[in-house]
Amino acid sequence: MTFKLIVTFVLLTTGFAALSQGKPTTAVVEKGIIKVAIMYPYAEGKTFNMEYYETRHMPMVAGFLGPNLVKYTIEKGLANGVPNQPLPFMAIGTFYVQSLSDYQAAIGPKRDSIRADFSNYTNISPVIFVSEVVK
Amino acid sequence: MTFKLIVTFVLLTTGFAALSQGKPTTAVVEKGIIKVAIMYPYAEGKTFNMEYYETRHMPMVAGFLGPNLVKYTIEKGLANGVPNQPLPFMAIGTFYVQSLSDYQAAIGPKRDSIRADFSNYTNISPVIFVSEVVK
Repeated sequence: MTFKLIVTFVLLTTGFAALSQGKPTTAVVEKGIIKVAIMYPYAEGKTFNMEYYETRHMPMVAGFLGPNLVKYTIEKGLANGVPNQPLPFMAIGTFYVQSLSDYQAAIGPKRDSIRADFSNYTNISPVIFVSEVVK
Repeated sequence: MTFKLIVTFVLLTTGFAALSQGKPTTAVVEKGIIKVAIMYPYAEGKTFNMEYYETRHMPMVAGFLGPNLVKYTIEKGLANGVPNQPLPFMAIGTFYVQSLSDYQAAIGPKRDSIRADFSNYTNISPVIFVSEVVK
């Protein structure tokens, strides 16, 4: 009986370990994490190629950030929440990082090549907004 | 032996079920989810009481949204990503919802009381930006 209990316990423990390793890892964005949002304001005549941005530009920049990068997100502007007002932004790309100074140190030497890639997907000069996650 | 296997299987399955119920639920923001961001632009003389916003205003509005609300976030503006440029926003509150029309239907009848609460924490007129999660 004791042996059976031990076997059951081992199986249960192994099962739990396998389960916890098997589940997809979700990056946890905690209070205090830094967001660097690259915001592309909408205006008449402005263009934005989301497919290039998603498949080429953002993965390239994310690749420069190493383990400081918690996750990155991309959103596509749909509307102004107030009727008959212009769309505020065509798109926003956001890097969630542990450290702003590490972000700046990683991006600094790559700034020229990042900017040179802008013309491949947009004619907008982005606004860069740094904020802290409160909740 | 068959019986022992069945018992082990039942224990394992029960263990898994208990484990999956015990872990903290993390709201999953998937591609296609709608973001409604209430953005408070910075300007000289503008004020923003983050404590009131976090503990009173945002929980009140979130309470109007029911199961359509996936999660909400709050961020505090720190800097413009370009040196010597003004801070773009003092704060941003964001509701992640499954359906924009359900959001509008829930907020519509409450709009006056939501706006009446603005003066309790800020003198800024927010910009409301609706976007779709691409990644």
